Amino acid sequence: VRRGYPEAVYCEGKTPEQVAGIAAAIGSRADPDGATLFTRAAPPHAKAVLGVLPDARYDADARLLAWPPRPPEPTGGLVAVVAAGTSDLAVAREAALTAAYLGRPYELVVDVGVAGLHRILGRLDLLRRARVVVVVAGMDGALPTVVAGLVPAPVVAVPTSVGYGAAFEGLAALLAMLNACAPGVAVVNIDNGYGAGHLAAQIAAPAAA
Amino acid sequence: VRRGYPEAVYCEGKTPEQVAGIAAAIGSRADPDGATLFTRAAPPHAKAVLGVLPDARYDADARLLAWPPRPPEPTGGLVAVVAAGTSDLAVAREAALTAAYLGRPYELVVDVGVAGLHRILGRLDLLRRARVVVVVAGMDGALPTVVAGLVPAPVVAVPTSVGYGAAFEGLAALLAMLNACAPGVAVVNIDNGYGAGHLAAQIAAPAAA
Amino acid sequence: VRRGYPEAVYCEGKTPEQVAGIAAAIGSRADPDGATLFTRAAPPHAKAVLGVLPDARYDADARLLAWPPRPPEPTGGLVAVVAAGTSDLAVAREAALTAAYLGRPYELVVDVGVAGLHRILGRLDLLRRARVVVVVAGMDGALPTVVAGLVPAPVVAVPTSVGYGAAFEGLAALLAMLNACAPGVAVVNIDNGYGAGHLAAQIAAPAAA
Amino acid sequence: VRRGYPEAVYCEGKTPEQVAGIAAAIGSRADPDGATLFTRAAPPHAKAVLGVLPDARYDADARLLAWPPRPPEPTGGLVAVVAAGTSDLAVAREAALTAAYLGRPYELVVDVGVAGLHRILGRLDLLRRARVVVVVAGMDGALPTVVAGLVPAPVVAVPTSVGYGAAFEGLAALLAMLNACAPGVAVVNIDNGYGAGHLAAQIAAPAAA
Amino acid sequence: VRRGYPEAVYCEGKTPEQVAGIAAAIGSRADPDGATLFTRAAPPHAKAVLGVLPDARYDADARLLAWPPRPPEPTGGLVAVVAAGTSDLAVAREAALTAAYLGRPYELVVDVGVAGLHRILGRLDLLRRARVVVVVAGMDGALPTVVAGLVPAPVVAVPTSVGYGAAFEGLAALLAMLNACAPGVAVVNIDNGYGAGHLAAQIAAPAAA
Amino acid sequence: VRRGYPEAVYCEGKTPEQVAGIAAAIGSRADPDGATLFTRAAPPHAKAVLGVLPDARYDADARLLAWPPRPPEPTGGLVAVVAAGTSDLAVAREAALTAAYLGRPYELVVDVGVAGLHRILGRLDLLRRARVVVVVAGMDGALPTVVAGLVPAPVVAVPTSVGYGAAFEGLAALLAMLNACAPGVAVVNIDNGYGAGHLAAQIAAPAAA
Amino acid sequence: VRRGYPEAVYCEGKTPEQVAGIAAAIGSRADPDGATLFTRAAPPHAKAVLGVLPDARYDADARLLAWPPRPPEPTGGLVAVVAAGTSDLAVAREAALTAAYLGRPYELVVDVGVAGLHRILGRLDLLRRARVVVVVAGMDGALPTVVAGLVPAPVVAVPTSVGYGAAFEGLAALLAMLNACAPGVAVVNIDNGYGAGHLAAQIAAPAAA
Amino acid sequence: VRRGYPEAVYCEGKTPEQVAGIAAAIGSRADPDGATLFTRAAPPHAKAVLGVLPDARYDADARLLAWPPRPPEPTGGLVAVVAAGTSDLAVAREAALTAAYLGRPYELVVDVGVAGLHRILGRLDLLRRARVVVVVAGMDGALPTVVAGLVPAPVVAVPTSVGYGAAFEGLAALLAMLNACAPGVAVVNIDNGYGAGHLAAQIAAPAAA
Ligand SMILES: Nc1ncnc2c1ncn2[C@@H]1O[C@H](COP(=O)(O)O)[C@@H](O)[C@H]1O
Ligand SMILES: Nc1ncnc2c1ncn2[C@@H]1O[C@H](COP(=O)(O)O)[C@@H](O)[C@H]1O
Ligand SMILES: Nc1ncnc2c1ncn2[C@@H]1O[C@H](COP(=O)(O)O)[C@@H](O)[C@H]1O
Ligand SMILES: Nc1ncnc2c1ncn2[C@@H]1O[C@H](COP(=O)(O)O)[C@@H](O)[C@H]1O
Ligand SMILES: [Mg+2]
Ligand SMILES: [Mg+2]
Ligand SMILES: [Mg+2]
Ligand SMILES: [Mg+2]
Ligand SMILES: [Mg+2]
Ligand SMILES: [Mg+2]
Ligand SMILES: [Mg+2]
Ligand SMILES: [Mg+2]
Repeated sequence: VRRGYPEAVYCEGKTPEQVAGIAAAIGSRADPDGATLFTRAAPPHAKAVLGVLPDARYDADARLLAWPPRPPEPTGGLVAVVAAGTSDLAVAREAALTAAYLGRPYELVVDVGVAGLHRILGRLDLLRRARVVVVVAGMDGALPTVVAGLVPAPVVAVPTSVGYGAAFEGLAALLAMLNACAPGVAVVNIDNGYGAGHLAAQIAAPAAA
Repeated sequence: VRRGYPEAVYCEGKTPEQVAGIAAAIGSRADPDGATLFTRAAPPHAKAVLGVLPDARYDADARLLAWPPRPPEPTGGLVAVVAAGTSDLAVAREAALTAAYLGRPYELVVDVGVAGLHRILGRLDLLRRARVVVVVAGMDGALPTVVAGLVPAPVVAVPTSVGYGAAFEGLAALLAMLNACAPGVAVVNIDNGYGAGHLAAQIAAPAAA
Repeated sequence: VRRGYPEAVYCEGKTPEQVAGIAAAIGSRADPDGATLFTRAAPPHAKAVLGVLPDARYDADARLLAWPPRPPEPTGGLVAVVAAGTSDLAVAREAALTAAYLGRPYELVVDVGVAGLHRILGRLDLLRRARVVVVVAGMDGALPTVVAGLVPAPVVAVPTSVGYGAAFEGLAALLAMLNACAPGVAVVNIDNGYGAGHLAAQIAAPAAA
Repeated sequence: VRRGYPEAVYCEGKTPEQVAGIAAAIGSRADPDGATLFTRAAPPHAKAVLGVLPDARYDADARLLAWPPRPPEPTGGLVAVVAAGTSDLAVAREAALTAAYLGRPYELVVDVGVAGLHRILGRLDLLRRARVVVVVAGMDGALPTVVAGLVPAPVVAVPTSVGYGAAFEGLAALLAMLNACAPGVAVVNIDNGYGAGHLAAQIAAPAAA
Repeated sequence: VRRGYPEAVYCEGKTPEQVAGIAAAIGSRADPDGATLFTRAAPPHAKAVLGVLPDARYDADARLLAWPPRPPEPTGGLVAVVAAGTSDLAVAREAALTAAYLGRPYELVVDVGVAGLHRILGRLDLLRRARVVVVVAGMDGALPTVVAGLVPAPVVAVPTSVGYGAAFEGLAALLAMLNACAPGVAVVNIDNGYGAGHLAAQIAAPAAA
Repeated sequence: VRRGYPEAVYCEGKTPEQVAGIAAAIGSRADPDGATLFTRAAPPHAKAVLGVLPDARYDADARLLAWPPRPPEPTGGLVAVVAAGTSDLAVAREAALTAAYLGRPYELVVDVGVAGLHRILGRLDLLRRARVVVVVAGMDGALPTVVAGLVPAPVVAVPTSVGYGAAFEGLAALLAMLNACAPGVAVVNIDNGYGAGHLAAQIAAPAAA
Repeated sequence: VRRGYPEAVYCEGKTPEQVAGIAAAIGSRADPDGATLFTRAAPPHAKAVLGVLPDARYDADARLLAWPPRPPEPTGGLVAVVAAGTSDLAVAREAALTAAYLGRPYELVVDVGVAGLHRILGRLDLLRRARVVVVVAGMDGALPTVVAGLVPAPVVAVPTSVGYGAAFEGLAALLAMLNACAPGVAVVNIDNGYGAGHLAAQIAAPAAA
Repeated sequence: VRRGYPEAVYCEGKTPEQVAGIAAAIGSRADPDGATLFTRAAPPHAKAVLGVLPDARYDADARLLAWPPRPPEPTGGLVAVVAAGTSDLAVAREAALTAAYLGRPYELVVDVGVAGLHRILGRLDLLRRARVVVVVAGMDGALPTVVAGLVPAPVVAVPTSVGYGAAFEGLAALLAMLNACAPGVAVVNIDNGYGAGHLAAQIAAPAAA
């Protein structure tokens, strides 16, 4: 386990057999202090892993498999994960679960896009309690700027591939987020909920970490 | 005069001499019912035109020359022009003056970017009186979505080349605006204040137009 | 209902079940003054919604579902929707129906691309009666410039992903339209008939709107 | 002289000294049957060449130097060169002069952009007499499609870097021209008047060529 | 029939039913002097057209349907169509057949890419007899420059989407061809065999055309 | 002062006069609890500000002006700022000074690019003491991945425009950083030392912040 | 056989029938001194070739068919092929097998990405024995720079399309590799294991080659 | 000195003073076995270095400074450096001189672009004697494919920024070279003569290296 955090196996581009092989190797290791996450796991990947590690937990929306199945007891600051729309929910769940498996408490807030400001303004209390806010949005990627202007915590922005045409598979949101008018925003790869959740967990780590 | 609107001469890429020649031709025309606008006019262009049409009016910020110098009496609906930041002001002025020379009343609102939401929320009264809102913004281009979510009028979005790095000379703002989450937004070319002002004037035209 | 206009549910990227859930919530609301549009609804989405709201109306070409099924009595100015070619018809229908459900009268004109100028010139009478013209075109995206040069009304240009190779899924048409030589053109996202129809309805709104 | 056509020296990126050296070598050759063109020659290049070949002819607008200075007696079909706007004139002149030095008769037509269709329609007689039409346009690059729809001759389209913002230095016009809705259009590089004139001269070559 | 050339129906993006409808309309026209081409016709399109016009001719490789089935008696100059590799053959056939249906004689030369120069050098006799050469190539798109340096005829270059990775679906070949070092090259859209064949037929048209 | 942090004035694209006006307004405010940063300030901007606020501090390398001139007493965790090469130093200084003016202790490490791994490996002790590491790199942008693989702290990656050709003004480094193979990396805009320093200061804020 | 190396048939974009035809022609040639490689061969291609050349060898991972099936006796220097992750293995195998069929000894090293430096540092002995190192990596493409900084041999870098979002199908890795901070790196096309293996075999050729 | 090769200082983006400081540090080192190269050194950089190391050698065309001034006695195989046109000469010289300072014999061949094939065919004897060929070309970047098809040695391709319009500062040549139809080609960054020369020297190193 690298640097004290769970190991992650990136399943996309691997065959179910390859992933099962990795799962078997992990299962045979006596690794007391860390979990393993299988990211971007399609159902066939999940089936292959569950054949080897039957008590692994699979979240089909987040395409995330975790083993051992239970996240550690949460410590450190609150990770707030905000999704602009319902279509951004899968990526937001991936971020939230990753943070949970790295040991952080989290809250998930959905459908608060900037086209109706009252929605995000209505959740300010929660957001201001967070040690870090993960903001997941597609299309115009405008939400992170707005959030960063409202809360003192650092914002981890996740562009999603939600949209069409000149959304260019998330490029529009990515560029918008990199140019956020409010300071305090950093960006991860398009649809990279895992990376955002990991970083958020590091930011919100308890003092001793 | 095409379709009843002032003619426009695009000065960029023309020499001052070429522009002066066009100005002379215009001055010699007996054209009672329409103004001429010289757009993207640098100071040497302005000097050349003023040598031929001494009463022309030059707005150096907007790089706009108008002749005859006085805009028509305003008719039709209000054109609100909103600039996210001070750096967007030149383009916003170009839009506002163009609308004025096409005969519309206008109001100019500056420094109301989304990083501080109270600023735009503080101007809602004005914005809700407008027949059309021109929103000028660079960097993340987030302001048009927010405005469109707050007012019933159509929004004409103008991306600007303000910013650096991944702003890519206005591309980030352009893409964000094309993907505005709120409906009711259309977009003109980067830095195209003239086009936005012209369109806004057409939208806000009085019933007879 | 935001700002007095129908609500829209963007179906792409949502499962039929998710969309049915939203439909059920809407059906149970006593919402006297507004329709709901389900945009980019594939047949499975349509089936799911119709299971919940059996009298909803589905236009398969436009991929648009509307409930309640009847558009309001038309008021305001005429929305002319122009499609360059037959392949652009689906997007044009989405624009026209959206305008209709927002309460505007509309006319649809098809197959008037610039490669045969007589076709568009033959429809000038109609176009000059419009309060706003929506122009839908793919490939070289040349039609909006030509229309804007012929009519005094504002033009809302919709690039489509029709074409291949260097059409780059609508990018060529998008860029051409953003650079329209005639003023009075603004652009929405590629294939965004919904956005164009919505904006057109706002532009053509009756004075009281 | 390659393949029976004048040689061309591309001056951009060469020092005046290098170009003068090439000119001296050419001057010392007894080359009875062909001219040499120095393309994209800035004034310092021109000065250097004229120091060596004093009777060379320099066209500063077209940035073209020719030696010997007189084009051959025109033979073959008519090359019509059409420029959408005044800003496209330099590139159009480069095309026309190149065709002339390759021995073709030519006509130059300016300021006939598609924003005012009557302008191009007023020149149809001339265009229909041409063996080939070179169409030079920037911004939306819409003119070649329109011309190709009106005349039976092949169209050589030259995108120019005229424009700003999303014109992307001629990319918008280039893409539009590659996607011309009318068949019978081929495209050369942005601002490449020399290449267009050369190709046009080959197309309009007399039967024996 | 526009400008004396066959009409073309672009099938991609139309349903077989739509195409059959167009075919029926064409079949019922008494159009003595022109053929109709259905381009980019997939087998279902072909089947639909053949149901209406049973004697139409379908070339599955070129995805081209022609009706009436027989091309006119060839007149004018020779159209040489050159394909760099076997993978470029379908596009080359589309170009050759289009030229044939526009009335030109043609020759098709395959597998003469620049990686083995002897192959193209071995076909010079044929190429030098041509009035125009269509060069079809993917990947590095190097062949048109080489051909243009060897023959006096104009070259119409067709980039293809053959290749992978940084070929970017034909973009690499397109850019290379636009920057051909030898003059006398113009370019059509990626995979646009129809456009190339049409233009070539216009270039090679007999004097009276 | 937004959210308890210093205000920042972005000078690029503003005239020295505009900036001086803002400086005067700030100087006249009795703002006891916060500093103001003038970012991307060229020497003329600096001169204009110093004319109004003579005790402001200008760092010409970082193009940063601060007033009042002294940063607050440092609290919170250590911000380590790492520059891959000397050419990245200006951006790294901007990040470090920003963190300092937001109240954090910092260390600056230079010339530790991945082409000589011993250099970064030799500074591990320092890096492992940091609460957050800002990594500034151009060209291939490889350093953040390597650092994130070595330390448990979150990494804020800043791509720079250092390089040429296919570096595309920082795009290559930006993309590489967004695709960092090691988790725990987030990215800010190209050359955005200010944004990175601000975010780092938020991440390293003392518990009470 | 070109220049003394095996011939290669690029199968992608050819039908199995076309490939079988080529295989038959090759099988009927009496070509004593060279092998043929069928690259990017999908299973149907393989089946078609094996029907004609039953003793051909197919490596399904590398999508490579070779005939005759046995590589020549290895001569020349060692070709080390390094894959950053398991997902890069197929491309790495294609490179290694190509080098083998061109007559070189090779070693394959997998899963040594820069996120865990100890992995590559643990293989230095092997890498320093190589005459040339092929480095295959996706995502951030950081490995070639690191390897080139550690070994004196030339590095052939192969970007792969492994990754998602801003990996842009291998573009991020390609750009990073072209900007490698360490000298001694050259790059081939994305996923081009064949090209890398071929070049490596040429570099490691024995003195007489 | 890294890995036994001369150290290189990249001057672009450093001030003359910074470069002079590095030069002084180098001069004070007793480094008997290696040279230092200052790459992309503009005249002010050169002046600054020569003030510190007066016997350094500056090649203004190649923008290269070397100290000590004399390259080592050449050993290993021949490095052939080929420039397509005169405009590519500066980059070619940078490659050749770099190879020389790394201890290789070299030959420089200029003006052999593919538009006139006889030029490159006339130099085959020389090219076939080379252990490695560096090919420098702009515009369509076609030359490396042609060379790689003619010689058995590996080809290092260097795209240059020569050209305009759709050459996109060397992007067209870069993409063409990455898609070279002949195997045996690898590519370095645009205008990167230093990298190409370094790699070539490594490839042509004597057996003991
Ligand atoms: N969803 C993901 N997105 C980006 N990187 C990931 C993801 N999942 C795992 N990784 C990283 O990929 C590497 C594992 O790759 P692999 O060895 O191919 O499974 C580790 O460095 C992980 O941190
Ligand atoms: N600032 C501007 N941006 C875009 N188009 C413009 C601008 N100013 C004028 N135009 C258009 O450019 C054309 C005039 O171009 P020209 O004839 O070259 O002066 C007219 O169609 C104008 O509508
Ligand atoms: N076809 C469409 N294209 C773009 N935006 C849309 C479309 N349909 C709905 N929207 C917008 O998307 C939002 C609804 O998203 P959602 O809540 O995910 O259904 C609203 O702001 C709509 O205005
Ligand atoms: N303006 C131009 N645009 C494109 N190619 C040109 C131009 N002028 C000359 N050339 C070509 O460039 C080559 C001459 O380049 P050079 O030997 O560097 O002078 C010849 O192949 C010419 O056909
Ligand atoms: Mg959003
Ligand atoms: Mg803004
Ligand atoms: Mg069209
Ligand atoms: Mg035009
Ligand atoms: Mg080829
Ligand atoms: Mg670096
Ligand atoms: Mg990697
Ligand atoms: Mg070349």
